[in-house]
Order: sequence, then structure tokens, then C-alpha cells
Amino acid sequence: MTGSRTGVSQPAYLSELQTQMDAHSIGRQIHALIAELYPICRSITGDGVRETLQIIGRHISLAVQEIPTGTQVFDWVVPKEWNIRDAYVGNANGERVIDFRRSNLHVVGYSKPIRGRMTLSRLREHLFTLPEHPDWIPYRTAYYRESWGFCLTHRQYEGLPDEEYEVVIDASLEAGSLTYGECFLAGETDEEVLISAHVCHPALCNDNLSGVAVATYLGAYLATRPRRYSYRILFAPTTIGAIAWLARNEAQATRIRHGLVLSCVGDRGRITYKKSRHGAADVDRAAAHVLAHSGADHEILEFSPYGYDERQFCSPGFDLPVGCFMRTPNGRFPEYHTSGDDLEFVSPESVADSFATLVSILSVLERNVTYANRNPKCEPQLGKRGLYPTPGSKEHLATLWVLNLSDGTRSLLDIAERADLPFTAILDAAEKLEKHGLLTRVGSAKPRG
Amino acid sequence: MTGSRTGVSQPAYLSELQTQMDAHSIGRQIHALIAELYPICRSITGDGVRETLQIIGRHISLAVQEIPTGTQVFDWVVPKEWNIRDAYVGNANGERVIDFRRSNLHVVGYSKPIRGRMTLSRLREHLFTLPEHPDWIPYRTAYYRESWGFCLTHRQYEGLPDEEYEVVIDASLEAGSLTYGECFLAGETDEEVLISAHVCHPALCNDNLSGVAVATYLGAYLATRPRRYSYRILFAPTTIGAIAWLARNEAQATRIRHGLVLSCVGDRGRITYKKSRHGAADVDRAAAHVLAHSGADHEILEFSPYGYDERQFCSPGFDLPVGCFMRTPNGRFPEYHTSGDDLEFVSPESVADSFATLVSILSVLERNVTYANRNPKCEPQLGKRGLYPTPGSKEHLATLWVLNLSDGTRSLLDIAERADLPFTAILDAAEKLEKHGLLTRVGSAKPRG
Amino acid sequence: MTGSRTGVSQPAYLSELQTQMDAHSIGRQIHALIAELYPICRSITGDGVRETLQIIGRHISLAVQEIPTGTQVFDWVVPKEWNIRDAYVGNANGERVIDFRRSNLHVVGYSKPIRGRMTLSRLREHLFTLPEHPDWIPYRTAYYRESWGFCLTHRQYEGLPDEEYEVVIDASLEAGSLTYGECFLAGETDEEVLISAHVCHPALCNDNLSGVAVATYLGAYLATRPRRYSYRILFAPTTIGAIAWLARNEAQATRIRHGLVLSCVGDRGRITYKKSRHGAADVDRAAAHVLAHSGADHEILEFSPYGYDERQFCSPGFDLPVGCFMRTPNGRFPEYHTSGDDLEFVSPESVADSFATLVSILSVLERNVTYANRNPKCEPQLGKRGLYPTPGSKEHLATLWVLNLSDGTRSLLDIAERADLPFTAILDAAEKLEKHGLLTRVGSAKPRG
Repeated sequence: MTGSRTGVSQPAYLSELQTQMDAHSIGRQIHALIAELYPICRSITGDGVRETLQIIGRHISLAVQEIPTGTQVFDWVVPKEWNIRDAYVGNANGERVIDFRRSNLHVVGYSKPIRGRMTLSRLREHLFTLPEHPDWIPYRTAYYRESWGFCLTHRQYEGLPDEEYEVVIDASLEAGSLTYGECFLAGETDEEVLISAHVCHPALCNDNLSGVAVATYLGAYLATRPRRYSYRILFAPTTIGAIAWLARNEAQATRIRHGLVLSCVGDRGRITYKKSRHGAADVDRAAAHVLAHSGADHEILEFSPYGYDERQFCSPGFDLPVGCFMRTPNGRFPEYHTSGDDLEFVSPESVADSFATLVSILSVLERNVTYANRNPKCEPQLGKRGLYPTPGSKEHLATLWVLNLSDGTRSLLDIAERADLPFTAILDAAEKLEKHGLLTRVGSAKPRG
Repeated sequence: MTGSRTGVSQPAYLSELQTQMDAHSIGRQIHALIAELYPICRSITGDGVRETLQIIGRHISLAVQEIPTGTQVFDWVVPKEWNIRDAYVGNANGERVIDFRRSNLHVVGYSKPIRGRMTLSRLREHLFTLPEHPDWIPYRTAYYRESWGFCLTHRQYEGLPDEEYEVVIDASLEAGSLTYGECFLAGETDEEVLISAHVCHPALCNDNLSGVAVATYLGAYLATRPRRYSYRILFAPTTIGAIAWLARNEAQATRIRHGLVLSCVGDRGRITYKKSRHGAADVDRAAAHVLAHSGADHEILEFSPYGYDERQFCSPGFDLPVGCFMRTPNGRFPEYHTSGDDLEFVSPESVADSFATLVSILSVLERNVTYANRNPKCEPQLGKRGLYPTPGSKEHLATLWVLNLSDGTRSLLDIAERADLPFTAILDAAEKLEKHGLLTRVGSAKPRG
Repeated sequence: MTGSRTGVSQPAYLSELQTQMDAHSIGRQIHALIAELYPICRSITGDGVRETLQIIGRHISLAVQEIPTGTQVFDWVVPKEWNIRDAYVGNANGERVIDFRRSNLHVVGYSKPIRGRMTLSRLREHLFTLPEHPDWIPYRTAYYRESWGFCLTHRQYEGLPDEEYEVVIDASLEAGSLTYGECFLAGETDEEVLISAHVCHPALCNDNLSGVAVATYLGAYLATRPRRYSYRILFAPTTIGAIAWLARNEAQATRIRHGLVLSCVGDRGRITYKKSRHGAADVDRAAAHVLAHSGADHEILEFSPYGYDERQFCSPGFDLPVGCFMRTPNGRFPEYHTSGDDLEFVSPESVADSFATLVSILSVLERNVTYANRNPKCEPQLGKRGLYPTPGSKEHLATLWVLNLSDGTRSLLDIAERADLPFTAILDAAEKLEKHGLLTRVGSAKPRG
């Protein structure tokens, strides 16, 4: 690696402007990827995840890992692999009244294989509906206990005639492996940014094909850019996948400087950022800063250990600076974990906005360096260097703040927060001052060894 | 002593439920004790305090101390002992128009003995009334200066005929001693909880027979329970009594980990907690937590050096973590220091509520231990241990918070505060996790040596 | 020097009462000084500053410094000296239509000399007006670039006939020096209080003849008083003057314990205090305390590096505890930098109020010492010393707070803030307690060596 810092000195780097220009196009592309992944039946193990990773791999370079069933990963054991070929409930006329081929939500995830006939009364013990949303199929799983079941709309459930039914779940639950994929993008330094999206849900678009698709496009975008940090984009089944990754990468995990879990990033609600356990990590501050200056409604949540895979990354033995980036959080929209979370529920505009906001947050982290004022005693004479903007303008204030606070201990983000000015204004001022020899960079990360 | 911690592992310990069940009965009993103590004429020294302590001693084991007149206690000297047998003002017809036997408030406390005849005009220099509350007798004392006087209603004062009066105060002001009592309840450790109630006021119910009676019943209650802490319940005259106790127990005082002064705990107002000088001592946080989760209106006051004996406990040379537990604070109710502070002014419901709240606060302190998560890397698998409650339920959140924050430095109260969940929910979760070997306790107090 | 501390023990020291009594008289005197200085044409160099310092020197002992043109002061170079004798624009009839003798604002400050004839069209390139305030002449300068110009009302500008004009600026821009003055008042210690007012503006009363005149009268006042601190009152041209002073007094500057820049202290608006870069320096806290207890509307601003010479004093290489004391800040009143900032715009009442408030702030700093309670264990017996005020009165509370918090680490200002009582009440209590041997002073500054 060279020691050059093209990432920071190249003005077009991660340019917000460029992102804006592509927003419409990117939104449509991300939505198209969601649509492509929608029909695949995913679970925490099995071919659905493999097929999904294969499609993602057409966009970014993906290393796929297989962890055998029975492998101990901290307190957990990698479970059997589940694969399903077909499933249905047939009526007395031989018609498929509940049909996996129509929606993969119809089968309770991880159902053990079954083949038999039974009365409606017995069948009902294995049927799940949402009485309060009678037209939606619920999403249910039977992880870590061997059982089976079907999900259907409450309206259909109420209309089932009292007759005998044929019940078929043509699935296998056998030794195999758990699969995850990771895209690693080497940067100037070994320090890493982690982006993680759970990849185990079947036909649910916001939770979390939106996260998967936005993470894929972030990877494709970052791959074309100079990078101060190395990036690791992880597509793993929730909980057990994150745990397996951490168990196999304990040393690697210590390199993570910033991280974001992406989940539910496609609905039409405002952006929600949930802080890391630390609560004031750089990623927390960068996200809050970008959102505060976005002009858009948004919400910042304190950390809680209930949510997505930030639960594992922020467990006390790791305590990584990983926040969770969402639009409407899990459980706060009625379509959550139902067939209502479909392709209509997520919009190209929303995924594009999520993408652009994430690019802005990563851009702050990439460019957040610390300077020392080389003329710390009194102000330097800006006028003789052509650096004297309109007195009181944003450019002038940004210049004065950078000079006043660049004492070698405060980062540009620290300065932007104190000055209550956009990071980009502070950055522009700092880069101009650096070019004129008035600032010198301190404490940069070491290049990759 | 055994090292067993029955206090914490026994689920019924200081059980809020049990307290609730007994609330009605306890309220009536506490009120009855107030009524029994009401007629006794107390002062900072003398037989009134001794008689009071004797009655308290029927409920709890009390060690009574006598400190001789003239003893130096820090900057103070124990004053003469005051005893009164009779006092009255008689009119020309020989009728007792002001009669100590009707109310012990009629005599200014610590009045020197007097016997003589005088005109109304001269007598008036020694009469005290409350013009703004013409039917109440004020409470006044003549501590640390030798004088005498009578208190009466303003209505009576205005009706006194202009004639000669006989004035008799049959009292003695002589070398004797200052008396206080303390109930010590040994616990598993030498670390102490101090509960203090001033015992020097005559017929005033809220200030402070309520505090005296609630402290007595707390002692009786605690005596029957396992105790991690040792408890010291102090009944002493205000200021000089607390100072005398501290002067004689300087070394002992360093063992005090938590303390509460009880005062005015019987009126119908909301509970007021005044913080210790430290301001964030465990007792301050436990009281604020219990009150915040009580659902009842309440008030938390910052420390100030004006008030009750927390002034001495929180003097800079001791700076003990002692707060003050009240309902309506001194001076904020018109009946304060008047005959209006009578048996009607305090209610069984209020003393029972004060008692129950104090039990809850002490219960938090007793059970506030610190754990370390034995599987700090990622979450443990709760399901295989039957520990997986309804996702998102209070039980589930409490379990996740305890696991996430139990890094050996945060107490259960720290966790309850951060999680914004009741201490009892956090405790229940922690005890279940400990039972399954997922938590280990750290940094417990040493057992008594 | 003797070690006696007359400054603190003498009760009349910097007495607020005395200040109040003189307020009316002082207001008129300060306003008269503003009026005397008003006609002088000042700039960052030149005879206008010298003449101004000479007048100030009639009130206080002033050391005048001359720094030669070309001297390097940190990143800056002292510029040429500018002097102006006459300037006008004459019309075809030989009448002076714009005349420097009528207002020194008519000439752009630092204009290079010019003498010639030109059309209105060419002249207009050098004319400056305020269309939004058509009756005011703007104030403009041409520092650090060689150009020239005239300022006039927009109304006059619009009425100028299209004819040829004679343009004369009889000025010189030559090697000379930059002039500043300082009044040093030695105190008991070498520790200094800096008071600074920029002295470079011509006929502008609020900005900053008000600051110059109030600083002059503060100097005269302080000269007659005992002083714990030494005082340095600096009258220098803005920016380059403060930079020159700092460049020549780097070692001296480390003695500055507290500082105030005075600017715009004469208008009828409320007082505004802008904090030092530190943000919680003693001067920031003293100013906030005095203003909070003043009963008057006021505003406290956080530090920003845009403003007056606090920019230099608070540059990161100095980071001195210097705040800025103003009434309406620069740029927030329409008269700012226009002929509207005239003798009517500033009032005797406002300068008197600014003066009295500054005296109060300095008085807090002078008298803000730290005590240790000599009886830290329990309260001392106040009654036997005649120190027992009405229970609950401000005097009583102040006495209790001083005793409770005087542990040798908290200053009287710390105590006043915590007690939420006026500093003077805390000071009075402390002085009484000290007199009775209950307090001992700790950590006083060393006397001047």
C-alpha cells in the first residue's frame, strides 16, 4: 500500500452530489434486487440462503462460508440444515387449499417433514393466522424445536370446510451446514467498518430484503472508491449467523472501528438510528450528525439489547461500536412479519434515501480526521492567502472554528458538533486550510501492514 | 456467621406483596403507637424521652444511652436536664386558665422554674400565640438560653382579662443527662444501614411521632428478616442527640453505607425524598427509583443543609450517604409546630404507605448486587434452558438487559435505571439467570468478622 | 508587599452600594468621555489612536506603545501607518458634497491618497451606501489592500447629479507604527485580570467608544481600591492590536487569570455575556452568577470564534479565560457600523449599568476565596457565638451552606452556585464565620514576588 490519502484529498470522494444524481436510478436497481430475491424460501440454514448469496455475488465479490451442523459457536450449536421442496394442505377434492408454491410464508419455517391425512380439528393445532389482519399470512418459525405448521390468512382459515385434509411438507432437516457470505474490501488501513444484514427471512421485503439489497449496493459502491477503512459486508442468518461469524473471527472483530446493522430500510417511514451500546461511538455521532443536518424527520433511539444482530456485536464480551440503521423499527409497523411486508410495502425512493444517508454517514467516518493548527497563537492572516470569506458566512465561521479547535485532540466531527455546522462545511474549510499549510494532520491510522 | 445469602436467594425476603397484605393492619398499629406517645411531654433531655424509649422498647430491642450534662460533644456541650411536673397560669379566681395538664404545648420547652404573681401586662412578655391561626397553640422552646414562657391560642390570649395572674412552672433544670436509644440488628456483614428519627418533640404527631413510630415498626419488621446489612435505628433528640451519637461513634459511623432520616411521614401529602449531600448515593438512587416506579405523585429534593439530622450526618467531616424521607416537609404545612399537628392530622393510610415505601427502598439496597455474565461473548441460548420469555415482554427485556450490562461493574440498580425497568423485574431476571449458571456474583460485601 | 488582604476583609471593598450611589454621576461622566472621543478619526494606526489614548490618559495612568510598521507579530505584519488631513468630493460648482469634516465616516478607512476629477459613473465605483437605511452613512475600511472610497447616505447618493466631480483624499499611508495603550494596576499578587477594549473605530459610539470609556472609568475606579489581582486595561486596535500585544507579551499573558473584552456596552439593550473558549472559567461563572441574580433580563452566549478580540485571547495557543461583555452584540442592531451608532444611540443609564455590572463581576472574582470549616464534624453551635439568624432566613441558609460545603476544595462561588444564593450573601456569612474562627482560608494566591 502507498501512504497516499487519496480518499480524503480527492474532492469527489463519496460525493454526496454524485449520490444525489444517481438516487433515482439506484432506488430502482435496489428495488429490482429485492424483487429478484423475494420468491426464494430462506431460513437460518439451507439452499435458500445459498441461492440468495449467489445472486448477491453477481454484484459484489462474496466469500461464502459453510459451518457444519453441530459446530459449537460460543453457547450455541449450529443446527441441522433445513431444505424444503414442496408443501401443501389438500382438501377432499385433491385441491391444494394451502400451497407453499403460492407463498413460502405458508409453511412454518424449519417445519419437520410430514405426510398424512387428518381432520380439520387436528390440523387446526398446526395452523397460524392473524385475526386482527385477516388478509395477511403471518411469518412463523420453529427454530430449535422440532414441530411443523402452516400459516394462512384468517379469512381462509375461517372458510375451511370441516373435512379430512391431506398434509404434506416435503422437507429435510439433516446434518449439513450454516451458510453466510462476506464481502471484504481492503482499504488503506486494517481498521474495519462492518456492515451487516440478516439474510434468513423468506418473502419479507422490508425485513430484511431491503437491508440485504442496500448492503449489496453499498458494497458495489464502496468497491469503486478509495477507502481509508477496510469494509466487511456480512450477509448472515440472524442470531446464529452473527454468533457463528463472531466465534470464528474473534481476533478479526477487534479491528472493527465502526459498524452498522441494516434492517427494515425500505418502508416509507422516517429513518431511525439506534445507538450502539457505547452510545457515543463515532458511528453514533456521525449518524446523529448526518440526520440532524439532513432536514428530514428522523429518530435517534438509545441502545437496547432487543433488536437485530447488534445484540451480538454489542454483547459485553465484544462491545463493538455497532449501531442499527432502520426506517420503521421491527414491530412498529403492522405489516411486520406478515405477507403485508411485500414488494409494494418497500419503495425505490425509500431504499435510495437509506442508501444515500448511509453513504453520507460512511463519508463522515472516512473523512473524520484530526488536525493541529500550525499557527495556534492568534488567528493567521486569512486575507493574504485569499482565505477570507464573507464575514459571518458559513464558510467564514467554519474556517474560524477549525482554526480555533484544531489543537490536535479534536476531530472534524468534534468541531462540526461544537460549531453546529454541517460536517461538509467543516471539512471544506479544513481542506482549504491544510492546502495553505495552516493545518497539519495528526494521529492518522496506520496503513495496512 | 455463615456465608450463605439467604437475604437474596429467599424469594419472600422483604416481600412487597407481604407488605401490601399487612398494610391496613400496620397502618392502624403505627397510628396506635403515635397515640400512645402523644401525651408524653418530651424535650431534648429529661424523663419524657426516657418514657418514650421505654414504650418503643416494648416493640424492639433498644439500648438506651445516657450522656451526662456537661459532656463535650464536638463543638457542643450536653445541656442540663429538664423535667417538668406541672405548670399553669391561674386567674384571680384561682382557676387554671392555661394548664400544662391539658396540653404539654402550653409550656415553652425548657422553661426555667418560676412561681409568682404578675399583671397581665408583664405576663404578656412571656406569652406566645399564632395570630394567623387563632385556634392553634404554637410549639416553642427555650433551648440554650434560660427563660420561660407559655403558649396559647390567640383566641384565648385576646380574651384574657386585665387582672393579676398566678404563674407556676414546676420544673427543674439541673445536671443530669441526655438520653437516646438505639436498636441494632446484626446482619450478614458489618456494613450498616442507619435509620434515624428525632424523639424530642412533645405532642406533635407528624413531626415527629410519625417518624418515631414508623422507625419502630421498621425495626420490628427487619428483626424478623434475613439481613445482608446490619441495621441501626436511632431515636435521639434532634441536633444535640445526633451530634452526641456521632461524637461517641466516630469509628462506627464509617460503617454506614446507607441512611435515612425519617420525619413528618404521617400526613396526607405526597412522599418527599431529600437527597444526601452526595446526591447520587445508592440510597438516593434507590429512593428515586422506587418512587418513580410507584406510580404515585412524589417529589425529589436536592440536598440542602437546612432540615433535620441529615445536617449532622452530612456535615463535611462525616459526609455520610444519608437522605431524608418525608411526606410534606417541615414548614410547608400550616399545622407545622402547632397543636394542629395532632392525631387527626396523621392517618393510618399515610404511615402505612410510608412504611411500605421504606421497605421497598431498603429491599432495593439489600438486593442490589453486581453480577458478571459468564458467557459475555454473544447472547447465551436462552431457549434450551427454558429461559426464553415472550419476545419483547418485560421479562424478556429484563433478561436481555441483565445479560448485556452484567460486566462485573454495574449493579442491578444501575441496570434497572439504564433499562428503565422496575428493580424487581431486573432482580427476578438476574436470579433466574444465576440459577442457570449464566451469571456469577462479584464484589459482595465481606461477612461480619 | 505585605501579606495583608485588605481587599477581602475590608467590607467596603468594591462595594455595590457605593457603585449604586454613584451610578447616575458615573453614567453622565462616561457619556461625556464618549462625546469627547467621538469627533476623532481613528483607524488601526495613526494619530487618531494617539489622540484618543492621550485623552484616556487624563483619567488613568497609561503606558503607550509604538510598534513599527513591518514588525512581524505571529502570522501578521504591522501595516503602514495611515493619517488623514482632509477629504471631500466636490461638485461642478466647487461645493463639497461629501465632506470628511462633517463626518469621519465619509471616507473609507485606510483609503490611499487620491486627487483628481472623474465622472459620476467612475466615482460610483468608489461610493458605498446602505439602501435599506437610506439616511445612515455606512462604516467601511480598506485594511490590508490599497484602495480608496467614500461612504454616504443612500438618499444623497441617489440625488447626485450626473456631472464631473473633484475627488480629494489628503491622506498618507507610510511607514510609521501601530499604537496601543495599557494601564497596569499592581495588586497583591502577580495574577492578572485583563480588560480589553478595541480603540480603532472612528465616530461609532456603541462600537466601541462605549467599551473604551467604560474601561477607562473601570481603571479609574480600580486604581482607588485595594486589589487582590493586578489589572491590565488594554486599549488596542482590533485584531492586529491584540495580536501585537500578545506577540510582545507571551510570558506575561500566562499570568492572566480572568479577562473581559468590552464591546458595545452603551446601547439600551439587555446585557449579553459571551463565554470564553473554556466555557466554565471563573469569569464565565462569575458573570453568569451576577447576571442571574441581577433580576434583569440578560443573555449568556456560548463561545464562538467570531466576534472581537476574544478571538485572539482564546486562540488555541493561548486559550485564556477571557469572555466578552456586551449589551446588544455586533451585527444584531441595525445601527451597527453605521452613522446611526451615534451619541444618541448610547445612553448614560446603559453605560452606568454596564459599569456597575462589571464592578460586581470583578468583585466576585476578587473575593472568591476558598475556606475550610474548622469544625467539619457536625454543625458548630452558632447560638453561643451570636451567629444564629432567623431559622430559614437567607442569612441562616447562607451560613449553613458555607459550613456544609467549605471542605477546602470549594470556592465561595462554587457554594453560591450550589446554594442558589447571591455571592454577597455567601461572602457575608463566610466573613462572619471566619471572624469567629470557624473557617480558615486555604489555597490563596501567592503575593507578588
